[in-house]
Amino acid sequence: MIDSIIAEGDIVILSLEPRRTYMVKVEAGKTFHTHKGYVKLDELVGKDFGSTFQSSLGAMFTALRPTLSDYIMKSSRNTQITYPKDAALIVMFSSIGPGSRVVESGTGTGALTTALAHYVKPNGKVYTYELREEFQKNAEKNLKRSNLLDFVELKSGDVTMGIEEREVDAVVLDLATPWLVIPHAYEALKPSGTLVSFSPTIDQVVKATEALRENDFILIDTIECIMRAMQVERGKTRPQTLMTGHTGYITYARKALKPIKKEKEAASAKEDVPPIV
Amino acid sequence: MIDSIIAEGDIVILSLEPRRTYMVKVEAGKTFHTHKGYVKLDELVGKDFGSTFQSSLGAMFTALRPTLSDYIMKSSRNTQITYPKDAALIVMFSSIGPGSRVVESGTGTGALTTALAHYVKPNGKVYTYELREEFQKNAEKNLKRSNLLDFVELKSGDVTMGIEEREVDAVVLDLATPWLVIPHAYEALKPSGTLVSFSPTIDQVVKATEALRENDFILIDTIECIMRAMQVERGKTRPQTLMTGHTGYITYARKALKPIKKEKEAASAKEDVPPIV
Amino acid sequence: MIDSIIAEGDIVILSLEPRRTYMVKVEAGKTFHTHKGYVKLDELVGKDFGSTFQSSLGAMFTALRPTLSDYIMKSSRNTQITYPKDAALIVMFSSIGPGSRVVESGTGTGALTTALAHYVKPNGKVYTYELREEFQKNAEKNLKRSNLLDFVELKSGDVTMGIEEREVDAVVLDLATPWLVIPHAYEALKPSGTLVSFSPTIDQVVKATEALRENDFILIDTIECIMRAMQVERGKTRPQTLMTGHTGYITYARKALKPIKKEKEAASAKEDVPPIV
Amino acid sequence: MIDSIIAEGDIVILSLEPRRTYMVKVEAGKTFHTHKGYVKLDELVGKDFGSTFQSSLGAMFTALRPTLSDYIMKSSRNTQITYPKDAALIVMFSSIGPGSRVVESGTGTGALTTALAHYVKPNGKVYTYELREEFQKNAEKNLKRSNLLDFVELKSGDVTMGIEEREVDAVVLDLATPWLVIPHAYEALKPSGTLVSFSPTIDQVVKATEALRENDFILIDTIECIMRAMQVERGKTRPQTLMTGHTGYITYARKALKPIKKEKEAASAKEDVPPIV
Repeated sequence: MIDSIIAEGDIVILSLEPRRTYMVKVEAGKTFHTHKGYVKLDELVGKDFGSTFQSSLGAMFTALRPTLSDYIMKSSRNTQITYPKDAALIVMFSSIGPGSRVVESGTGTGALTTALAHYVKPNGKVYTYELREEFQKNAEKNLKRSNLLDFVELKSGDVTMGIEEREVDAVVLDLATPWLVIPHAYEALKPSGTLVSFSPTIDQVVKATEALRENDFILIDTIECIMRAMQVERGKTRPQTLMTGHTGYITYARKALKPIKKEKEAASAKEDVPPIV
Repeated sequence: MIDSIIAEGDIVILSLEPRRTYMVKVEAGKTFHTHKGYVKLDELVGKDFGSTFQSSLGAMFTALRPTLSDYIMKSSRNTQITYPKDAALIVMFSSIGPGSRVVESGTGTGALTTALAHYVKPNGKVYTYELREEFQKNAEKNLKRSNLLDFVELKSGDVTMGIEEREVDAVVLDLATPWLVIPHAYEALKPSGTLVSFSPTIDQVVKATEALRENDFILIDTIECIMRAMQVERGKTRPQTLMTGHTGYITYARKALKPIKKEKEAASAKEDVPPIV
Repeated sequence: MIDSIIAEGDIVILSLEPRRTYMVKVEAGKTFHTHKGYVKLDELVGKDFGSTFQSSLGAMFTALRPTLSDYIMKSSRNTQITYPKDAALIVMFSSIGPGSRVVESGTGTGALTTALAHYVKPNGKVYTYELREEFQKNAEKNLKRSNLLDFVELKSGDVTMGIEEREVDAVVLDLATPWLVIPHAYEALKPSGTLVSFSPTIDQVVKATEALRENDFILIDTIECIMRAMQVERGKTRPQTLMTGHTGYITYARKALKPIKKEKEAASAKEDVPPIV
Repeated sequence: MIDSIIAEGDIVILSLEPRRTYMVKVEAGKTFHTHKGYVKLDELVGKDFGSTFQSSLGAMFTALRPTLSDYIMKSSRNTQITYPKDAALIVMFSSIGPGSRVVESGTGTGALTTALAHYVKPNGKVYTYELREEFQKNAEKNLKRSNLLDFVELKSGDVTMGIEEREVDAVVLDLATPWLVIPHAYEALKPSGTLVSFSPTIDQVVKATEALRENDFILIDTIECIMRAMQVERGKTRPQTLMTGHTGYITYARKALKPIKKEKEAASAKEDVPPIV
């Protein structure tokens, strides 16, 4: 199979066990340097993905095709990225998939944009807004590298002033003031469409939730995913000592058509309903 | 837009705030009964998704298009389902997307199959193996309801004896003895392909990890996602009292080509590498 | 040893494996009824703690001396109790021990009072304030049952108006508006004394923290303990499916003498210091 | 009050906001150096605990009396310490208190010994076993510094060969092979006494649990406390980014008298009982 052979220009993950990975572009005449010696990238061309190469110091590197998670983690960064675990849940709770039209803001590093674009292809589109030009340029570079730029429209407007798109399937917010965008998100969304907002602080969650309630969104929920890694070794298995304790909260909701006549239900009533799983 | 109108035969989520939802098929002459009164399903036809309807007892139900998460949670069940949070991470770490060819085993309720099929369409395929005929039939029903059956091939072989497919992008395991399938998964996968295994117990994780190490998989990691919901109300915000403490561990890995000459690195060396995020 | 023999009047835990426990008072002529049959309490008298008795339906009950945790969990309740995990951390971060003089408010069920009294005996004292008389009476009953009433002074004043004690070692707050009590707690505490506040909501934590900062408390931190139980069985070990996701946050601090000239340090500076463990 | 004045020879915590602390012994003529300048320790003598001092570089240090948690965290270490959160839960689940007689093994740094001794004083005793002489000496130093040595008997025997004490209230295990000690712990304990074992790995938990079941212990449970710190700042409140993901599991149980005729109850039956809180 032709696409299982490494070609010049390919983006490749060089893996050094256990768990160290480097993302490189295969270019003629180049060498890639690590603390375990260098690898001549010419040697990779024509070999199978999955092959193992020896560095100048004898370390064994395996050349892998990058996964979506690799593209996210290896994003060129000028700000915080959205981690794969959060990107995964944002994608799930936005219910996007192939063909979806999605508005995102802000673009940031483009890490989340990469995830969204990965799933809406081949016939969907991500409209992503970013105010800072240098962020946009960096995101464009990341998207080009992951070969997903065709499924993304990079826009430079200010979403707190309005969203141009209409009848989109989902709006994904990852910016400091989601509550200012929620009225515009309502206008942009199809009825029954989904909104997902990602925020590190509780105060952002409270304000976003209030804006969602005021703007005829329903089924509003907030979750966080505490991801813990395991060290697996027979007789010594245990959770890893250090972990990321918090990245952010994910708030999601559905657009209902106005007017909704809501029944008054106390917040405490929430305790009566089944827990979110 | 034609597809934003509810038609006879549509699958609809009826939402009753806060957070109670029912999945119904819109059929002429039928009524849907809840503890808050009944809704005549005829009334929904021709209305917009997102519209709100009054039940016989005055409760307001909003009719929504089902999300992927709704289809998963409302699966007809004859065994445990894979929850959306886990399905999301399995999809992320398998790196599948539109066009991917994926082997899954076992089919179970088809909840995870639904997620996989949702993301591989329009031109990918999920080959899903299940030994128990009644499970397969139930999964077929769930997949038909979510309109994803075209992207799935339901198979009844025993994957511990072998996998028929070759050059697949990913193998997803959710069965009692993943370690017995891992050698076959190696054969089925493209070089550099991904394997993801979901298991509730630590013993399964240890055995699967050992089998992965013995079968030339690399970048083997295990994580769990502890999902916690928030009760959001200005002045009263707090994590929810009850939560699901555990569903399962997600182990993932990449196929390297044989032979890999591994450097011996103690398990303790793992502490040196950056934590998984 | 005389105190290892069950006597009339003793409080006993009847344990039915796995993990079902009942707290009973051994009274002549009484029987204790469960869904697994009844036990005649007379039979217990004169037997050793740790002995096993057969119920009328053949179930085996073991008679144990109650632990502190048993007394907490079996408190007669008219409001939420403080769970053992939180009581343990409150005791640790308040740094109390034998001989400590502690102010507590509110008394509530007396569950936390029980823990505090358990540790300050034989020569310390817990001064516990409660406004609602029925709560106080119930707490008194719980403390009498656990034989700790001698180490507690039940008080009925309103601590938001002031605390009578002076030079106490610790102030422990478990009430709706801790921030109103913090200035009085400052007056009551010895210099270098500890304050611990337990609150279910984040808003309470923020207000308490602000009040602590304004009232010359230092080393202010907030933590929560997410306790997860394991199901342990060779080959099937895993975290328990259901868990308590949240009980409350524990905020603790130390009293410094006025005036403290604080260096201005941005909240972001907190990231520089070692994480709390 | 005399004991609120800093005297020569006192152990003092010097606190530099936010959250940096140093433990020093006040000695005439000594200076204490930090990256924020030095403090002349002579200046502290005769001042109140809680007072604030300026360093040579103008940083403000507050002098506090050490808490139990300070003594634990500032232990002179030659091995891993038991963190305050775990020490707190071990103390709670062992149900020890003033007057208790406790066997501990191994002594290690003496951090957990410090916590145990703090709570059993003034008339209880901790018998702590350690094989490595240098550990024992270091622990002795830590216990002397925290003024708790009178309540501890440092022993050098091998507890896997036997425990000398009898009729103790609790046995606390923090060693690599708890299962080898459990039969001896049974002999040492009072009927109805408590055993608590702390272990980092799941395999240790499984083996300890099996040994407990075989040795007539009942009410056997295992929990872990995942402690998460909050960054509290109005408008920016959030869980801390980095956290300790795992320290260890706490297994606890009660001694029943032999023979117990156990009803056979499947592990799955555990699901029927209320979750541990």
